[in-house]
Formats: sequence, C-alpha cells, structure tokens
Amino acid sequence: MTFNPTKHSHCRYNPLKDEWVLVSPQRLQRPWAGLYSACLHSVLSFLCVGRVEDDANDNDEIANDESQKNNPLCPGVTRPSSKEPNPFYEHTFVFENDFPALLAEIPDPSNDEKTAKDDLFQCHAARGVCKVICFHPNSRLTLPRMTLDDIAHVVRTWLDVYNDLASKYQWVQIFENRGDIMGCSNPHPHCQVWATDFLPNEARIKHKTQKDYFLKHNGNVLLLDYIQRELNDFQKERVVIEHEHWLVVVPYWAVWPYETMLLPKRHVLRLSDLTPDEQVGLGKIMKELLIKYDNLFKTSFPYSMGWHGAPTGSMINDDCSHWQLHASYYPPLLRSAKIKKFMVGYEMLAQAQRDITAELAAQTLRDLSGEVHYKEKKNTK
Amino acid sequence: MTFNPTKHSHCRYNPLKDEWVLVSPQRLQRPWAGLYSACLHSVLSFLCVGRVEDDANDNDEIANDESQKNNPLCPGVTRPSSKEPNPFYEHTFVFENDFPALLAEIPDPSNDEKTAKDDLFQCHAARGVCKVICFHPNSRLTLPRMTLDDIAHVVRTWLDVYNDLASKYQWVQIFENRGDIMGCSNPHPHCQVWATDFLPNEARIKHKTQKDYFLKHNGNVLLLDYIQRELNDFQKERVVIEHEHWLVVVPYWAVWPYETMLLPKRHVLRLSDLTPDEQVGLGKIMKELLIKYDNLFKTSFPYSMGWHGAPTGSMINDDCSHWQLHASYYPPLLRSAKIKKFMVGYEMLAQAQRDITAELAAQTLRDLSGEVHYKEKKNTK
Ligand SMILES: [Zn+2]
Ligand SMILES: [Zn+2]
Repeated sequence: MTFNPTKHSHCRYNPLKDEWVLVSPQRLQRPWAGLYSACLHSVLSFLCVGRVEDDANDNDEIANDESQKNNPLCPGVTRPSSKEPNPFYEHTFVFENDFPALLAEIPDPSNDEKTAKDDLFQCHAARGVCKVICFHPNSRLTLPRMTLDDIAHVVRTWLDVYNDLASKYQWVQIFENRGDIMGCSNPHPHCQVWATDFLPNEARIKHKTQKDYFLKHNGNVLLLDYIQRELNDFQKERVVIEHEHWLVVVPYWAVWPYETMLLPKRHVLRLSDLTPDEQVGLGKIMKELLIKYDNLFKTSFPYSMGWHGAPTGSMINDDCSHWQLHASYYPPLLRSAKIKKFMVGYEMLAQAQRDITAELAAQTLRDLSGEVHYKEKKNTK
Repeated sequence: MTFNPTKHSHCRYNPLKDEWVLVSPQRLQRPWAGLYSACLHSVLSFLCVGRVEDDANDNDEIANDESQKNNPLCPGVTRPSSKEPNPFYEHTFVFENDFPALLAEIPDPSNDEKTAKDDLFQCHAARGVCKVICFHPNSRLTLPRMTLDDIAHVVRTWLDVYNDLASKYQWVQIFENRGDIMGCSNPHPHCQVWATDFLPNEARIKHKTQKDYFLKHNGNVLLLDYIQRELNDFQKERVVIEHEHWLVVVPYWAVWPYETMLLPKRHVLRLSDLTPDEQVGLGKIMKELLIKYDNLFKTSFPYSMGWHGAPTGSMINDDCSHWQLHASYYPPLLRSAKIKKFMVGYEMLAQAQRDITAELAAQTLRDLSGEVHYKEKKNTK
C-alpha cells in the first residue's frame, strides 16, 4: 500500500503562516458522506435523530421520552453504523468515532512522492484515532447539573482513555464542544478524544513557548509563574475561582469574551499525574465554573474546551518539566444567549479583538453563583 | 493623559501562543454600547435598520424601496451617530467607523506601569483608525453583480484609502465580511479598513516567514516560487482562474473548504504598486471568482476576505522585497447555502481540519461558470 493523498489522512504545511492543516479525504469517500454535517461532530450530528429541545421552564430531568430512545449516544440505542446496540451504561461510555478524521494505519509518503521533501509543498501522513466519550446515560444532563459522583466518573474516564492512548500517541487531545452554536447539535453530554502520532499546531507552539521560558528563567515554569503573579501581584482581579488544588482565571491575554483557563496550582505535567485528591477537586471546580457559565446568560452555555499537557507516546521520556497541565474554555457568547462574538474579518485576516476586558469578565463571573444553577432556583425557596 | 488599560485600546501578549490580542475597552464606555451587536461590524449591525431580505427569485435590482431609505450605508441617510446625512454618492463612499476598535491618540504605557516590561503581562498601546467603504449606492448589488466599471471604482477607492493611511500606519488592513453567517447583517456592499501603528499577528508572521524563505533561497520570493510551482509542476490542479496579470488558486494548505488566494503573477509588494492595467485586471478576475462562488451553492456566498502586502508607515523604507501582495478569501460554506464548516473543538484546541481536498475544491470552482451569475440565467435565454 502506498500513500495516497486523496485517500489517506495527512497534514499539509502552510509556509506563509508556519502551521499545519489536517486533511481527512477518507471522510468523503464513504457512501453516506453526503448525509452528515460539516462540523467536527459530523458523526454525532448525523446520528442525532431525537434532538432534545432545551426548555428553560422544564425541570424534569427524567428524560423518559422519545428522544432518549432514538439518540444514538443513549444506552441501548443502535448507532446506524454499528452492528450492536450501545450497552445500557450507567455512568460513561466510550466508543470509536464511526467517521474518524484520522486513520491508524497509513503508509508513509515515499521519498519520490513529489510533495515529500519540499519547502512549499510539505506533507506528512497523519495517524491517529478518534473516540467519543458519553458522560452520562441521560441526554438532558449537562456537566454542571450532574452530581459530583457523576462528574468523578467523567474525570476517571478521561484518565483511563488518556492513559490508554498516551502509551501509543504523541498527543491525546480531549475536547468538548457544547451547543448548536459550536456545531454540536446533539445535546447528549459527551466529549471527543483525538490522538495523533504528531503534535498539532497548538501543542507544538505551547511546547516551544514553555520550553523557551523555562530556559530563559532558570527552570521556572511559565504557567506556575503566571499563577503566582495572578495570585500575588494583581489583587486576584482575573481570578474566578480558587480552591485548594485548582484555579480558574480569565487569562490576561484572553480572546473570547468569557474565556477561562483551569489549572492545578501544583506543578502537574499531565492528566495522568493528578492525585486522587486533585481528581476530586477537579470535579468540584468544574461544576462550580460551569454553573457560573450557565447562570451568566441563563442558558446552557456553549463552549469548546480541551486539555493541554506534556506530550506522550514517543516523547514520553523527553524532558517536559517546562509543561503545566491546563484546560482552556472558549465560549463564544458575549452579551446574551443569542449574541455571540464572531471571529471573522479583522480577526481572521489580522488579529483577534475584544471589547470587554479580561478583568471585567473575571469580575462578572466571580460575582455569579457557582453553587445554585439558575434552573434549580425555583426549587430552593 | 496617562495610559489607562480600561479606557485605551491596547494589545496584550499571549506568552503561551506567542501572539497578541487587540483590546478595545473604549467601545464599552459608550452609552449606546448595550445596543450594538457583538461582531466586528458592530457599527453596521447596529445601524442596519432596513434589512434587505435576499430573494432568489427577485431580479429587480432597482432597490427603490423602504430598506434603501433606512439603511445607514445608503446615500442621503443620516447615520444615528453622525450629524449630517450621507452624501448622495454615485459610486463609493468612505467614512470613519462611528464605534472604532482603535483610537488614533493614546498615551504610551509608562515605564512604571506594572505591565509595561514583563514576560507574562506584556501590553502596548494600539493606535489606529477604522474606516468603512461603501461599494455602491445600491444595497442589493453585491460585487459579483456590479459592472466592471463599478468594481473599478471599488479598486480605485481601495488604493486611495490605502495610500492615505499607508503614509502614517505600519499596517493597513482592508477586509470585507459578507453575509449574516460572518456576523455582517447589513447587506449593503461594503468593506472595512483598519490601520494600525503595529503589525497584527498575521502580518508579523507572514513578514517573518517570507523573509526567512527569501534569505534561505537566495532572494527568491516565497509566493512567486509558489506560483511557478503551481503553474508548472502540478498540471494546474489547484488553479481556479488564470488571467494575464492575476491568478486565483486554492492554496495547497487551504483550511476553509473553498478558500482561495488571489495574487498578481508579477512581483508586487503592495496594492499601491499595481499598474492601471493590473487594476483593471483585478476587477475582472474578482468578478469572475465571485460569480463562481455565488454559483457554487446558488446563494450570495459569504466570506471574509482581505489584502496582505508589505508593511508601510514607519517600515516603508525597510527592505520588503520578500513580500508578495495577495488577497485571501475565507468562505465558511461546505456543502450548501446552509451547511457551514465550524472551526471549533479540535480546530480551536489543536489544529484546523478539512475533509475535501484543496485539489477537489479547485476543480469544483474551475468547472463553474464565472461569467453568468445564477440569478441572471433566466434572462439569458
Ligand atoms: Zn459533540
Ligand atoms: Zn460588514
């Protein structure tokens, strides 16, 4: 088998921007390609038959209804491309994406492949695996409304999937897309994991910047220094939540209106290095942050979020002490459940722009309740 | 007056990603801030009272209707924040954005400003000007449906505004956002120009990559080499349109499904260096490309586009021979007028991803008519 760029997933290099793009032509070759949607959640959008409409006045979380029977992410439902029904899972459920953007087995482009060695037309084979993690059997239950025990199962599953894939792949990208506005039309709580045998752009850049800082500052870790500065030098004006082990901050350089960074206060390289105590703490702080987010505009707050930590796989034995584990939340909403920030025009052609300052965003989030979800308020009086 | 980051536009540095974000807190201080929309076209969305609904069956281009009387971009209409009505312009009309993201006069952050010199909390004042260019008096007439004479006026205005701002500012970013989906809800044909006393991220990166290539390849220009390779080594498989002076290509490294790059075949540093012949040619090839785009999904094709060329202002005398002028078109649509590509999740956290290859996208665009707009077909028989 020889490498074929019209059939095999690969990365191409943009010499003008010094970054790569992942090309997945195999997704177009499937007979059902015409049916599924454009977004990264293609499998899920396509599979999403029984859309659960969000009803702000509906407190009934027992989704014993039609949608629950048809949603391909639900227990007992047979996904169109799988032969057996999903198990009747009680906590989380992991399966391989039926329409993966990455293939595990691809031949290398040969040396005489015209584009193999070239400053202008660089490409390399992109090997990897794409998985989906369902967070809970109930399609109506988002993370902020789950119990701490439910969330602990999600954290545990992240670690299990991470450890499994990290043994083989250089980068294991856990990411969650929530909300129609983010291209995810299936309300069932879930995330994805894409693992690759290469460092994607964001990973490669953060690997370099953190290493440069480490070398320049005699072995100090960029994000640990940043945490100390935020906690000690600025009256915590950008801090949203501080717990014993974890911190949520609107980064000084935030791009999205209510962007936050969630990170351990201790030096932690990877998800797999979290102590049991820190895992429990992670569930607590996530729930608090996500309740604040939902309360901000009294809506199920859309976002993309993901975890970044030290590389794995063939890089597992490299010195990565310059790394600090962190999650980033990128929510698009600006002023209401309907008004979002567009990253277009000047942003695409020149540079990201924002109006509300990081400090004002942090203050707004800080002042919101992180304990009582707006949908549960009526029950508390 | 001292620099105040809660009042003055400034840039903040992201040390993890090695890039900057433009912060425009002054836009929040206006009393009417709550009224205008989140997007970069805030002024326009806010001002857009008389939305013109796109009617695929409507061939009447004489927009002698209510919307034309209320649209703040139209001739004779008084914009809410201006005292005098717009002139009864016959071709193009330029005015300063009423809610600019950039201020022309800002004091520098002082040396004792805590964030002035700092690896983790870097910022600098962001000075500039934001203008709007209306392309045509008629709100219904998009670029692909204008006459070549109309488009020549647009090109001429680009050059005039560019030359004016380039004398003062390092970077003059001309960009057009078309379509609701791109956050531009005003259908009146227009673009924006944001000029800054600094190089925004995209400019800075392209300045560096082109210079590195130039030095490594004995004075060869990256994009000129690229053009030659595309024309001679690959059976023009990514070429969409080739004219005497101009070329449209789906770049090998394209991220958006039908992304294109439009560039002169001759070595041209800046818009202002175009010969009269090339200016005429530009109008022709733009019209052809935009007709193809509209014909692709039989819709007024949304996109963000913009021009990149050598820096200006204080850098005008630097050696910029590594630069090649080019425009980039970033259209989000993937498979129909409704199905768009989302840049979220993995894209935000890791790396851009696409399914359809650049070669297939180029072939599709190549095969479409660039002469007859789908709305005019019925008239031609
Ligand atoms: Zn999803
Ligand atoms: Zn606009």
